[in-house]
Amino acid sequence: MERHFDHDLNELRQRLLTMASHAETAVNRAIEALTTRNYDLALQVKQDDAVLDRCEVEIDELAIKLLAKAPLATDLRLVTAAMKISQNLERVGDEAAKIAKRARDLSQEPPVKIQVDLPRMAGLALAMLKGALDAFVNRDSAAARALIPQDIEVDALNKQINRELTQYMMSDRDSIPRCLNLMVATRSLERIADHATNVAEDVVYLCEAQDIRHQGINQGESGQRNVPVP
Amino acid sequence: MERHFDHDLNELRQRLLTMASHAETAVNRAIEALTTRNYDLALQVKQDDAVLDRCEVEIDELAIKLLAKAPLATDLRLVTAAMKISQNLERVGDEAAKIAKRARDLSQEPPVKIQVDLPRMAGLALAMLKGALDAFVNRDSAAARALIPQDIEVDALNKQINRELTQYMMSDRDSIPRCLNLMVATRSLERIADHATNVAEDVVYLCEAQDIRHQGINQGESGQRNVPVP
Repeated sequence: MERHFDHDLNELRQRLLTMASHAETAVNRAIEALTTRNYDLALQVKQDDAVLDRCEVEIDELAIKLLAKAPLATDLRLVTAAMKISQNLERVGDEAAKIAKRARDLSQEPPVKIQVDLPRMAGLALAMLKGALDAFVNRDSAAARALIPQDIEVDALNKQINRELTQYMMSDRDSIPRCLNLMVATRSLERIADHATNVAEDVVYLCEAQDIRHQGINQGESGQRNVPVP
Repeated sequence: MERHFDHDLNELRQRLLTMASHAETAVNRAIEALTTRNYDLALQVKQDDAVLDRCEVEIDELAIKLLAKAPLATDLRLVTAAMKISQNLERVGDEAAKIAKRARDLSQEPPVKIQVDLPRMAGLALAMLKGALDAFVNRDSAAARALIPQDIEVDALNKQINRELTQYMMSDRDSIPRCLNLMVATRSLERIADHATNVAEDVVYLCEAQDIRHQGINQGESGQRNVPVP
């Protein structure tokens, strides 16, 4: 029984890692499709998203099976953290699909004549996601904690890009639909960084048995904004 | 032991209902603040959101405690469903806070001279949320299933309002920042309907032990859009 339980726990961990790698691929593809205006690549992200949806349902099923076997408190934390991490990865897939949809639309239109720092924002969000998953693999609570403040930088970049796009829309009304597409894509990147933050918080909970959510950092409601940020 | 467990289970159910009523209040306040341009009312939603954040952490704590007591499969489903529902309610609070932030910004600006059907969209989203919570209270799987397709209507209204706002922005560039604020608010309403859908799916899982997520309905990736929808 015990050995069987450990086997299932390993299976859960393994599935989560596979799911994480699918999530990274989806985001990478969506961003590349957006920056290189590649319609076909953007189309592939739909499949990535469908794979992530299936992963979430399967991981939940396995997790519920494991919970029923009355594990130790530490196993319990691993199982519930796995359910939460998989939900976040599934939502990363949703955001990747949204970026890819905008990439498809934008690839059929003339490029917008404004350079926004989307590659940097994408790099930061992806690095956060990768860092959170590495922290999970290594059970590295300190690394997970160090990631959380990075979300502030992503939020700031999102605001900056939205300010620039709003200004540009006001100077060139024909660009409005395309700029709105770009705003949606940057908002999805910002959400991906939020999900990475959630995963990092789950890793801290897993390692330290301490819930550090909602502690004032990263609440997104700070300060004044000059322009609306969708 | 058994009686103590039942007592804790009731406590969990009760806390979830209290949280649900806070979530409804937050959304109602945010919408009223937006439509009546009431700055002070919008400010109150910040507190509602903070209450929901605390509820989520407390419910998770109680749920983990309950899981450790090796409950029956049916209790296990209630506890994991409660964790998921509370997470969705917490996110409803986040969206209410976003709407309230936009309501505060908009209350300081001249009104936008375009009538969009925001009250109808808000009514639909709120009815879905209320319906999903009622279905949970009554363990009414059929009611929960009936709610899920309503999300399509909310999505359609969101697209329509965004189309109207985009057109308006193109005709009056000074309205762009205010229209972007309205777009953010409608997007939050759309997300609230998504969370209501998630709760309805959790209720179906709770009653029928069947995971109906990701079954093709309500995937948000259907059809062509004429304008971007943030």
